[in-house]
Amino acid sequence: MKWKRSERLVDMTQYMIEHPHKLIPLTYFASLYQSAKSSISEDLTIIKETFEERGRGLLITVPGAAGGVKFIPTMTSEDVNEIAQSLIEQLSKADRLLPGGYLYMTDLLGNPSLMNKVGKIFASSFAHEKIDAIMTVATKGISIAHAIARHLNVPVVVVRRDSKVTEGPTVSINYVSGSARRIQTMVLSKRSMEKGQRVLITDDFMKVGGTINGMKNLLEEFNCELAGIAVLVEADHEGEQLVDEYLSLIKLREVNEKDGTIVLTEGNYFEKGGNNDESSNNN
Amino acid sequence: MKWKRSERLVDMTQYMIEHPHKLIPLTYFASLYQSAKSSISEDLTIIKETFEERGRGLLITVPGAAGGVKFIPTMTSEDVNEIAQSLIEQLSKADRLLPGGYLYMTDLLGNPSLMNKVGKIFASSFAHEKIDAIMTVATKGISIAHAIARHLNVPVVVVRRDSKVTEGPTVSINYVSGSARRIQTMVLSKRSMEKGQRVLITDDFMKVGGTINGMKNLLEEFNCELAGIAVLVEADHEGEQLVDEYLSLIKLREVNEKDGTIVLTEGNYFEKGGNNDESSNNN
Repeated sequence: MKWKRSERLVDMTQYMIEHPHKLIPLTYFASLYQSAKSSISEDLTIIKETFEERGRGLLITVPGAAGGVKFIPTMTSEDVNEIAQSLIEQLSKADRLLPGGYLYMTDLLGNPSLMNKVGKIFASSFAHEKIDAIMTVATKGISIAHAIARHLNVPVVVVRRDSKVTEGPTVSINYVSGSARRIQTMVLSKRSMEKGQRVLITDDFMKVGGTINGMKNLLEEFNCELAGIAVLVEADHEGEQLVDEYLSLIKLREVNEKDGTIVLTEGNYFEKGGNNDESSNNN
Repeated sequence: MKWKRSERLVDMTQYMIEHPHKLIPLTYFASLYQSAKSSISEDLTIIKETFEERGRGLLITVPGAAGGVKFIPTMTSEDVNEIAQSLIEQLSKADRLLPGGYLYMTDLLGNPSLMNKVGKIFASSFAHEKIDAIMTVATKGISIAHAIARHLNVPVVVVRRDSKVTEGPTVSINYVSGSARRIQTMVLSKRSMEKGQRVLITDDFMKVGGTINGMKNLLEEFNCELAGIAVLVEADHEGEQLVDEYLSLIKLREVNEKDGTIVLTEGNYFEKGGNNDESSNNN
């Protein structure tokens, strides 16, 4: 079957969006569509220009025999702003307040469309870093970790509180949970990482940073390197902060259980210019 | 800015893939691209024909003032076969065998590209059912649940083994875990579901079905309805099966710890014709 340009554009767009950060040889498309490589190159120029004009992603062309094209998802700062504002609005509702000043966020973490956006925000921030895996701790960070991982095309590694038979041999460490200063344990399957990997740590919530710090210690046990830390919500608190280099999308400034008020602002993503990408929405 | 057809095709394809099962009014595209509705309709016809010819998805047009267009992801049976065969091959490796005859699957569950495909397979199977939420139990089912949920555009509800302060008030039930016949507990935040919702239950592994049965009981406590059950791997076993109506992608037939042999076949998805969709890959 001979493909028309319009059909190729639709099919290639779908393929590239479903395979981010994957180098696709031009010959793959040429043989799939039975088209000349020159036509495929022209198609890719149209796709590239459309993606970049709208700030939806970059199309990187790698020349040479082992070359091809790679789709890097990006977000415009307008989109990131909109998502952060919507999160602040949703998280500010008084009925989210739980005893102890915690916020109910489980519904947001279970919303796949929202998580997809959050994952894309952080994936854009780390798009130009070498990342081999995303690490999080069970349970609530898993949806964010998978969303980031999908946009970076790398595996997710889930640290657990307890060892299970289905994990095989594990490495276990003790760490001090931040605010309560309790000794806790975290375990990770020995098979889950290889020496020398660069790992992005993520979680839904960070206060003092005890859990994140525990994961950092675990990385050392595996002789892996920290590539970055990304949290959805960080909470202001008194006393020492255990983690210094991190990116947060939202900041919880104040919780007043008595009045039921919750004060949230933008996280340090907006100070640090978390969006590495130069393209912006030009229309 | 005036958009060319080729640019609209790329941008619309991306938008629809990122918003499955969402009704998009034609006026949304018409105003975004400053184009006549008739041009948008022609664009949609090209996208629809391309998606359907390749078996990548359906484009459903809903007429009328409250109408629009909806993208329903589908998989061709060739693609489903290929994924199942690749899973069988990977899971058959002797080094996956753990004490007690368990299989190490954590790496596959942490692979976002594979999970995306598995999610799309099950989402296609249930594309024409009314589904309000996907339910799973922590920890290992979460990646599958989110992958299905994303393709169906519905929230994920995660049942836990223990109650945590961040979940707010919970409903707790006891259930009998299948093979070991131990009494276990599962808890779910009261806020996570509303009465009358239709819920698809999913998990990575099912033997006797005790855990899935526990989730079914939990649905009753919430006055919700079971819409279906989808498991990645089901295991053959002696004795009573607690769950009858389910879809499995892979079947674990036999595990011999002494020889290190693992026998896997296709799951009942292939007998039941899990692929609801009529379209197939025609090129």
